Amino acid sequence: MYKVNLHILIIAIAAIFSGSVTAQSYYPNGKQWVEKAEQLKPELTETVVKPVGLVEMVENENAFQGWEAKKVATIDSLYASSFRQVKSVVVDFGDHYTGYFSMDLQTIWGTSDAPVRFKLTFGEVPAEIATPFDPYPGDLSRAWLQDEVVTVMHVPSTVKLERRISGRYMKIALLGASQYFDFKISELKFTAVSSVDKKPADLPESVLKEIRQIDRIGLKTLKECMQTVYEDGPKRDRRLWGGDMYLESLANIYSFENHQLTQRCLYLLAGLTDDDGYVLGTVFESPEPHPQAGQRLMDYSFLYNVTLKDYLAATNDYETAKELWPVAKRQLDIIDNYVDEDGLVDYERANKEWWLFFDWKDGLNKNAAIQGLMIFTLQNTYELAQMLGKEDEIKSVPDQIKKMRKAALKNLYNKKKGLFECGEGNQISYASQIWMILGGVLSEKQSQQALTAVMNHKEALYPGGPYMYSYFIQALINSNMNEQAKSSLVEYWGGMVDKGADTFWEVYDPSNDFLSPYHFFPINSYCHAWSCTPVYFIRKYPEIFQR
Amino acid sequence: MYKVNLHILIIAIAAIFSGSVTAQSYYPNGKQWVEKAEQLKPELTETVVKPVGLVEMVENENAFQGWEAKKVATIDSLYASSFRQVKSVVVDFGDHYTGYFSMDLQTIWGTSDAPVRFKLTFGEVPAEIATPFDPYPGDLSRAWLQDEVVTVMHVPSTVKLERRISGRYMKIALLGASQYFDFKISELKFTAVSSVDKKPADLPESVLKEIRQIDRIGLKTLKECMQTVYEDGPKRDRRLWGGDMYLESLANIYSFENHQLTQRCLYLLAGLTDDDGYVLGTVFESPEPHPQAGQRLMDYSFLYNVTLKDYLAATNDYETAKELWPVAKRQLDIIDNYVDEDGLVDYERANKEWWLFFDWKDGLNKNAAIQGLMIFTLQNTYELAQMLGKEDEIKSVPDQIKKMRKAALKNLYNKKKGLFECGEGNQISYASQIWMILGGVLSEKQSQQALTAVMNHKEALYPGGPYMYSYFIQALINSNMNEQAKSSLVEYWGGMVDKGADTFWEVYDPSNDFLSPYHFFPINSYCHAWSCTPVYFIRKYPEIFQR
Repeated sequence: MYKVNLHILIIAIAAIFSGSVTAQSYYPNGKQWVEKAEQLKPELTETVVKPVGLVEMVENENAFQGWEAKKVATIDSLYASSFRQVKSVVVDFGDHYTGYFSMDLQTIWGTSDAPVRFKLTFGEVPAEIATPFDPYPGDLSRAWLQDEVVTVMHVPSTVKLERRISGRYMKIALLGASQYFDFKISELKFTAVSSVDKKPADLPESVLKEIRQIDRIGLKTLKECMQTVYEDGPKRDRRLWGGDMYLESLANIYSFENHQLTQRCLYLLAGLTDDDGYVLGTVFESPEPHPQAGQRLMDYSFLYNVTLKDYLAATNDYETAKELWPVAKRQLDIIDNYVDEDGLVDYERANKEWWLFFDWKDGLNKNAAIQGLMIFTLQNTYELAQMLGKEDEIKSVPDQIKKMRKAALKNLYNKKKGLFECGEGNQISYASQIWMILGGVLSEKQSQQALTAVMNHKEALYPGGPYMYSYFIQALINSNMNEQAKSSLVEYWGGMVDKGADTFWEVYDPSNDFLSPYHFFPINSYCHAWSCTPVYFIRKYPEIFQR
Repeated sequence: MYKVNLHILIIAIAAIFSGSVTAQSYYPNGKQWVEKAEQLKPELTETVVKPVGLVEMVENENAFQGWEAKKVATIDSLYASSFRQVKSVVVDFGDHYTGYFSMDLQTIWGTSDAPVRFKLTFGEVPAEIATPFDPYPGDLSRAWLQDEVVTVMHVPSTVKLERRISGRYMKIALLGASQYFDFKISELKFTAVSSVDKKPADLPESVLKEIRQIDRIGLKTLKECMQTVYEDGPKRDRRLWGGDMYLESLANIYSFENHQLTQRCLYLLAGLTDDDGYVLGTVFESPEPHPQAGQRLMDYSFLYNVTLKDYLAATNDYETAKELWPVAKRQLDIIDNYVDEDGLVDYERANKEWWLFFDWKDGLNKNAAIQGLMIFTLQNTYELAQMLGKEDEIKSVPDQIKKMRKAALKNLYNKKKGLFECGEGNQISYASQIWMILGGVLSEKQSQQALTAVMNHKEALYPGGPYMYSYFIQALINSNMNEQAKSSLVEYWGGMVDKGADTFWEVYDPSNDFLSPYHFFPINSYCHAWSCTPVYFIRKYPEIFQR
């Protein structure tokens, strides 16, 4: 997930001249928090994975993105062959893995008297293997694409890629070798890594097959993204983003229960805020922990508070929650900065000064959504304060919530239609309804009305991807629309299953396989944390999803 | 230098099924010899080289291979620039170097939030940078070409290429980077390596400028090739070949005097012969010392003996020479195997069962050359035996020499023309005259006649490259044609100097810049040991070359 506004860049440039942005933390304990996060860094489990066979990418208009992996031979057939003859092959590791690739090369005859050159291309989905990467039309760095050219000076040898790889398929193409010898690939190995070390309970056999499949793939997705932080996706970005963390930590609470990872991420984000103490959208672990200066992402700052509250509720780790309470409290100041005395957000200014993400959806007006999220944040932060006995420190919040709900209804709610509207032409979107419902602005009946109306509204802007879709499911549940929640989850995530997903995707629009916020679908992440949420829903609400 | 005949491949395939070809040596001490060679492995000196500026490769029909490196900016201008703006640049290190490349990357603004992808292309000559490598039309492994694609996961960082590089120019092309940050290259470094640790005396100022230039470039060429063995070329092959070693060790005796390197190479070749005890054309150092099975190169086997003799003469290291004497003696059996009772070589059979190299020259008949080289080998080996007091062990050699000279004159010499001829259509070549003269077949007067005649003969096959040209210079000297030797050396090697050579080339035909034995001129080696011989001639024969 990427976006940095121009004015943020200017701030970042200014930061160079004013010295390191991370030298001093807003919080007196900021540095210790980063150190604590480092102490909490998990050891990764390693699992050696062998390929299951050779495939060919075959064009098929009914397959996802037009390409299907068709099994053509056993892996042993590769190990028995001259690779100078084979020249190019696609290996299938049988499932999605994240980790380190190596292959052993052995001489068949002669002596390797020159280097061997390969191009190795890794893909999470078949089309990534079949689509040429160059000339590269995408917005994000071309270097995320997982193709590497390697020169191997001697055979026999073991070729190890230093770069961590994420995917299921690997194309090996021979770009050069001496004609005076021959060699074969004698072993292919993928050392898969994850910080998950627990297998959650299987769902009962009685649970709908589709739900069990979705749960299994959701667990896989989450596991792949749980590394030394909650990554957004193991192929691309590969780092901690606040909103992704929120959804991952929810799913983790109901599955792998690796709470230490959540704790680590909370400390990392707390230790690496901006100079105002606002939690940044994303931070990096390497070469040492550091923030993405200027990455002010308002919704992600708020979700920090909610994550901390849910963490405390799941673990009773009061020590951590107390230590980080000042951070949560500070995030509320963002709300104060943008909400007028009548409780209405100054959307224009907020949207200019921050990145309001919410969804990959062109043209989405986020006025109602940010108003709703602010209320949601106030609610959750107040609950956190109550758990910590700190409600006195944010006494005004209950009144603030009331005022903001009132302002929302007054300014953004079309009573007649039973829908929230905002922006030019009174835009109607799922996002607006969802976040107002999560903010508790509507009664159960009004919520049901709004969600039903938006689903029936042909022009309504629907969720652009699984991130917003997750909040949609939650809004349905909150509105006691359990059947709809279940059928929407099965329809949406089941759609990815039907299209052959091994892990759930960053971007999924049932009507367009090629949708990419980055203008080149192979750069999309096909194992993306924010898409793992069925694990949370299915396991938190068995009465809805496990019937 | 590469050639493996088909029948050799079959031998090599057979070798797989009969176990390792190197498991047992023909010589009882073979294994110890390899161990001794390893003990003699030199520590390389390291010199850190910084670039001298930025160049642009400009088309120029008068320049070597049509491309000229034109200085366009200082290196500091690169260090001061955004590399996202620069995108592509050619760096000039000011001279040819062999070693390891690294570059430091620094952030200018923002945070590196995605990997950076570069293509780095190294070239010994300008055209290597300017010529697209793909689709690759050459015979040798494409992987020798020095272009590497690297993915750099974080900035700041130091990018180090593991692969050893050889060249003067380096193109850095940016293939991908995040648009949300910028970076610059803050340092470029080339850690040059060589086993040369001595600077030979400068030639007197009185020496012809052209000769001094040729000597300087010859020294540079030799130094670049002197690594942990005498390499043929530091860009390509990068390994010990017997014939290359012979010429390098001669130049070394008169310049760097690193006799230990010669000693190491003699032990390596002795410890890694074929199963018959014949010295192979080439051996490898990595991952552990091993021969190129089947690389039976008759002229190179013979030159082993000559190298050993010259090594002894230069060092008085009788211990080594005595220990390796059985190897030299054994090589003479090759001669016995192919020479009939009248002293004439069975060229057809020899040419079928071995690779007779002599020169990169299409269509060259090597009958006279191999007859001459055999005599040269007998002479030199007998001299070696005399120095070691072993002449009794090869008593028959003096008679054999006489018989072979006689057979040569009788069967291959055209008295009327004063030229050696061989093969279909009585082919006349420099190679035939040269090797017969080096074998002492002709009197001084006859030698002068033959060389003069061949130089005046329009259809005579002239030397294909510096390897044969070196023997030509020696033949001129041996024939007391000193002026001609000097002018030929100045003309030939000076021709490379005039074309901008930093080091002397593997292949040089004054009339064709694009000549390549491998059908793609960028794969040629432009720093090639066998081209360093002016160092030897100029310094061994000051009365000829330093007047």
